[in-house]
Amino acid sequence: MSDAPDVGELTPPDRTLMGPGPSEAHPRVLKAMSTPLVGHLDPSFVEIMDETQELLRYTFRTDNQWTIPVSGTGSAAMEAAIGNVVEPGDTMLVPTNGYFGGRMASMARRAGGEVVEVSAPWGEPLNPADVEAAFEQYQPDVFGFVHAETSTGVLQPNVDELTSIAHAHDAYVVADTVTSLGGVELRVDDWDVDVAYSGPQKCLSCPPGASPLTLNDRAMDKVLDREEDPRSWYLDLSLLEGYWGDERAYHHTAPVSNVYALREALRLVAEEGIEQRWARHRDVAGDLKAGLQEMGLEMNAPDEYWLPSLNAVQVPDGVDDGAVIDYLLNEYDLEIAAGLGALSGDIWRIGCMGHSARSQNVEFLLSVLEEALAEQGFEA
Amino acid sequence: MSDAPDVGELTPPDRTLMGPGPSEAHPRVLKAMSTPLVGHLDPSFVEIMDETQELLRYTFRTDNQWTIPVSGTGSAAMEAAIGNVVEPGDTMLVPTNGYFGGRMASMARRAGGEVVEVSAPWGEPLNPADVEAAFEQYQPDVFGFVHAETSTGVLQPNVDELTSIAHAHDAYVVADTVTSLGGVELRVDDWDVDVAYSGPQKCLSCPPGASPLTLNDRAMDKVLDREEDPRSWYLDLSLLEGYWGDERAYHHTAPVSNVYALREALRLVAEEGIEQRWARHRDVAGDLKAGLQEMGLEMNAPDEYWLPSLNAVQVPDGVDDGAVIDYLLNEYDLEIAAGLGALSGDIWRIGCMGHSARSQNVEFLLSVLEEALAEQGFEA
Repeated sequence: MSDAPDVGELTPPDRTLMGPGPSEAHPRVLKAMSTPLVGHLDPSFVEIMDETQELLRYTFRTDNQWTIPVSGTGSAAMEAAIGNVVEPGDTMLVPTNGYFGGRMASMARRAGGEVVEVSAPWGEPLNPADVEAAFEQYQPDVFGFVHAETSTGVLQPNVDELTSIAHAHDAYVVADTVTSLGGVELRVDDWDVDVAYSGPQKCLSCPPGASPLTLNDRAMDKVLDREEDPRSWYLDLSLLEGYWGDERAYHHTAPVSNVYALREALRLVAEEGIEQRWARHRDVAGDLKAGLQEMGLEMNAPDEYWLPSLNAVQVPDGVDDGAVIDYLLNEYDLEIAAGLGALSGDIWRIGCMGHSARSQNVEFLLSVLEEALAEQGFEA
Repeated sequence: MSDAPDVGELTPPDRTLMGPGPSEAHPRVLKAMSTPLVGHLDPSFVEIMDETQELLRYTFRTDNQWTIPVSGTGSAAMEAAIGNVVEPGDTMLVPTNGYFGGRMASMARRAGGEVVEVSAPWGEPLNPADVEAAFEQYQPDVFGFVHAETSTGVLQPNVDELTSIAHAHDAYVVADTVTSLGGVELRVDDWDVDVAYSGPQKCLSCPPGASPLTLNDRAMDKVLDREEDPRSWYLDLSLLEGYWGDERAYHHTAPVSNVYALREALRLVAEEGIEQRWARHRDVAGDLKAGLQEMGLEMNAPDEYWLPSLNAVQVPDGVDDGAVIDYLLNEYDLEIAAGLGALSGDIWRIGCMGHSARSQNVEFLLSVLEEALAEQGFEA
């Protein structure tokens, strides 16, 4: 058995975060993280929970009563959504056009569901006609789609068309809004989305650890009417309802500090105004896109599917994507990311999210990326 | 749809936390929480992960390679343990002597396991003879027990006897060490515990959100040899192995700030020395116990099962337990807790954990508790 390890002070480097998340946390959010704790059943914390829920509803553009932060990172909110809504024997329709459709499939299977697919290539959105055809063919009970695909930088347009198709077939719609919430237009109620989940460390610029989830009454009724318990106790929404609902019964110890931070991050959203915030992301990321194109680079997604919060840029022929990433990190403490899965090696992923969606970050990135490309022999 | 909610600055009350957790976070840990983030795959974060794992091994008193913080609160680590080790068709033996045995049962059933019980009354530890008898009767594959029962304030003595019985029957041992890790003697390797999980917000005095888990090779081999995937994707240890192991592959976005904080909390353990820390808990909580007894109160657990980190005190006849709790909270910003389940109304639970295990907290508590009891007409 080892003696006490001699581990030094925490001194991480000072990074500029322009990858797929986490984005940079706002100083006010970091300050909230360091607020001394109260108990998870303290009356003052109950009030903080209520306020956080109210702010979450505003940000999701919903009146859903059932809107909470899940005690984990975005994938926990994702599993809370899928693991509760999908019952053994249910069929879930998932997309193939990015990394996160595959994750949905894995979670649905583990929940006891059958999985069927609607296809689109990586880097393209779903076509409503294909979704309609998949519904005709499979009659799925649950339909999952990704509003903003972090792996491909593609925004799914016409969400209300997709939900109409699903509802015409009596299915429930689960939307992955991890990289859209708080950065890209998202209207849960107007678009008739039944369930949406997200992460705090993207466009909300909050450290990961408490992750937004919202369900409308229709979806929550399905969850509360399940014959069999969900397969996770930790993420069982009928039990979480006891804590976040009127009863305030002990379920687990909420991540108090992460809820503090999320509340502060959402206060910043409310102060800025949600529509203004969407506009800022569009404007600042628009400058980023224009700058990249001026440099001779090409975006991976056509303009109509462009995702301001996550810009997928094609790696030019003859350039080593990893060498550029390393150069930016080592020379300039600037983080951008490589492609995932089918797009590995083909794209860079440049985030423009929340507090990182600032002109100073964009100008800095453009200038040092140009230098990194020149190091690789690429000239505009 | 609501307009932007007008939610004010975060101003929680300044509580003294002497309940069952969260305990008070050390100022250095709170400072770590507010450190600006790096990416979850940043080379600097990989180093921080390694250091955190090394410190966790020291604190668990283990050389287990497979020692990580799970991305969630203590119940997530609990479900990661049970949901991975228990396979469909396995039988898990769980105790009935407190709240958390029941939670183990629920998690084991959801994992597809059968549950059998070894009985002991709430407020008493398991008797090794009863455990042996249960093994003879049921031949369980997995045996779960609670080292430090937060619901009853009982410490399970003779852990090595229990593990010997289990191993003689080729079973795996899962220990709940939520309220013992870092506060009460716990020796994972010497006592031959196969799997142990904990929470950070008890004797480690770290905000909840990243929770300790350790498995020895024998248990991890069972997990990696499973025929069927665990039912949670988020808590699937074979996938988490890809992130925390040598590969460093993306699985989910780790709660970076919570890992920062846990690292700092564990550094404080290493600086103090684990055995010295156990001794401090024993000494400070010993003063608390003596003071309570001097006041005419009785501990719920006999001295040989006394749990220094969680002191269960009997509510005297004629005293309203809730009124005392409210008085302390409202008049003195001091948190203690009521009993749970079978002991609801019968006991108070007074924590003495981590940074809250200080003489100044104990002296304060004793003095204001005496006043609260006098308000209720109770005199020593």
